[in-house]
Amino acid sequence: MKRVLVTGGSGFIGRQTLAPLRARGYEVHAPTSRDADLLVPDTAARMFEALRPTQLLHLAWDARPGRYWTSTDNVAWVEASLRLLRSFTEAGGERAVLAGTCAEYAWRNETHCDETRTPLEPATLYGAAKHGLRIVAQRYAEQAGLSFAWGRIFFAFGPHEHPSRLVSSVAAALARGEPAETGPGTQVRDFLHTEDLGAAFAALVDEPVDGAVNMASGDPRPIRDLIEALAEAAGRPDLLRIGARPANPAEPASITAAVDRLRDEVGWRPARTLEERAAETVAWWRRAEGA
Amino acid sequence: MKRVLVTGGSGFIGRQTLAPLRARGYEVHAPTSRDADLLVPDTAARMFEALRPTQLLHLAWDARPGRYWTSTDNVAWVEASLRLLRSFTEAGGERAVLAGTCAEYAWRNETHCDETRTPLEPATLYGAAKHGLRIVAQRYAEQAGLSFAWGRIFFAFGPHEHPSRLVSSVAAALARGEPAETGPGTQVRDFLHTEDLGAAFAALVDEPVDGAVNMASGDPRPIRDLIEALAEAAGRPDLLRIGARPANPAEPASITAAVDRLRDEVGWRPARTLEERAAETVAWWRRAEGA
Repeated sequence: MKRVLVTGGSGFIGRQTLAPLRARGYEVHAPTSRDADLLVPDTAARMFEALRPTQLLHLAWDARPGRYWTSTDNVAWVEASLRLLRSFTEAGGERAVLAGTCAEYAWRNETHCDETRTPLEPATLYGAAKHGLRIVAQRYAEQAGLSFAWGRIFFAFGPHEHPSRLVSSVAAALARGEPAETGPGTQVRDFLHTEDLGAAFAALVDEPVDGAVNMASGDPRPIRDLIEALAEAAGRPDLLRIGARPANPAEPASITAAVDRLRDEVGWRPARTLEERAAETVAWWRRAEGA
Repeated sequence: MKRVLVTGGSGFIGRQTLAPLRARGYEVHAPTSRDADLLVPDTAARMFEALRPTQLLHLAWDARPGRYWTSTDNVAWVEASLRLLRSFTEAGGERAVLAGTCAEYAWRNETHCDETRTPLEPATLYGAAKHGLRIVAQRYAEQAGLSFAWGRIFFAFGPHEHPSRLVSSVAAALARGEPAETGPGTQVRDFLHTEDLGAAFAALVDEPVDGAVNMASGDPRPIRDLIEALAEAAGRPDLLRIGARPANPAEPASITAAVDRLRDEVGWRPARTLEERAAETVAWWRRAEGA
């Protein structure tokens, strides 16, 4: 029996991992933070003693938009994550997959993030916390004989996204029939729909791949492409005000991802195009807005 | 009033920091692990609430000879150290100095460890735990407005050293008038007596220097030099059996330290030579052995 414990399983990304894990034959346990607050020291040990999962997918973290980059809660999450990993191992766990971030990489103005070649020099506390955690966790796993992977998340969009974020605010405005003002959207990013990201994490749990893996589409686009795809899908390109807001000069021109490990070693690639996923996202926001 | 809390203050290095901190005008608090077990989650917060120190010198760690390189307790110490740093900051702390290690550096066969130029690629769980901790702690400190330094310890010797280690076992054998068998002792290392190391840490607490600082003598020697100095001081060079044991092929030929930051920015350098410190060490072991 394969039994996986998913932390953050009710979150933006975590909720999309449950169905693909079940489809791969896992018995899935996804306690919410109300059931099991991982920032409370005893929680992890008690949880694992009761459940004895063979696999761990750890996605829980501070993800409050606008705050998580600098929140000192990042440090508490490093502590909680190490505690979780130790408890999982001590309870007989076999494989752990943790969520990393593209913000671990040194972001120049144009950065193609490669797991083995790109320097890891995070500019933020969020990135530093993930980077430091990976260093300790990966070496601990080697020492303890635990199978270990680290999925670096790039730029996610999809249902249930916090409404203050770019894709969600544009999609919601379009769903309401209101104008959507954005910056020029020239920055190139690797976007991945959360349903794809969930499937990719399920694959990473299931395949014996070790270490850091970029969780990305391999199809980088100017942000403008995604915004236009949303408007196209909504049938309201007239509502777009691209360039109505100024560009943020601090934003790098291009952050893209090498996906060789994800495609060739994990054996996963997205099933749908950015345009198809944009259409689904608009449909979801229409339902959410009751439009 | 300057008030410093020292963790590990009854340990091999920590015990040597107390007098020099007092000499610099600090009110010194050094709870033992029996008073305050830092691996227990609530300890740090309660301790800081009671004491409200302005400075923190955190030296406590798993230091069991032969075990600390690989012990999974290293992970628990990362958690405890981050918790300690957060509690100290939340209780109004101003400056924290933590103990790092030369094992954070990538050790080639000959490595001159420079804080800014030498790659950080620890080969052991101990080194990885310290490295990961430094990444998270330093960025957290920047974010939280905490003054922060990280003193990387090289090769320490002195009184109270665990008897299973090289310098202590040779000095103790000489003190007992017994033969001392060693390897060829050709490896070059930067040795520092713990009394010097204690004074160097007190200086680092007291000076507003940020980030990683090598805590070393700047006078690297073949291990053989130190062994011979011990025998010379004991008046028993006849008891030395240098080369009676085989060389360890896994030991790098040379691990030395750049000490520019310690000397020029912290303003500290050792007051005595290796030979003078060897003589003191032999005298201490004579007393300890009742010889």
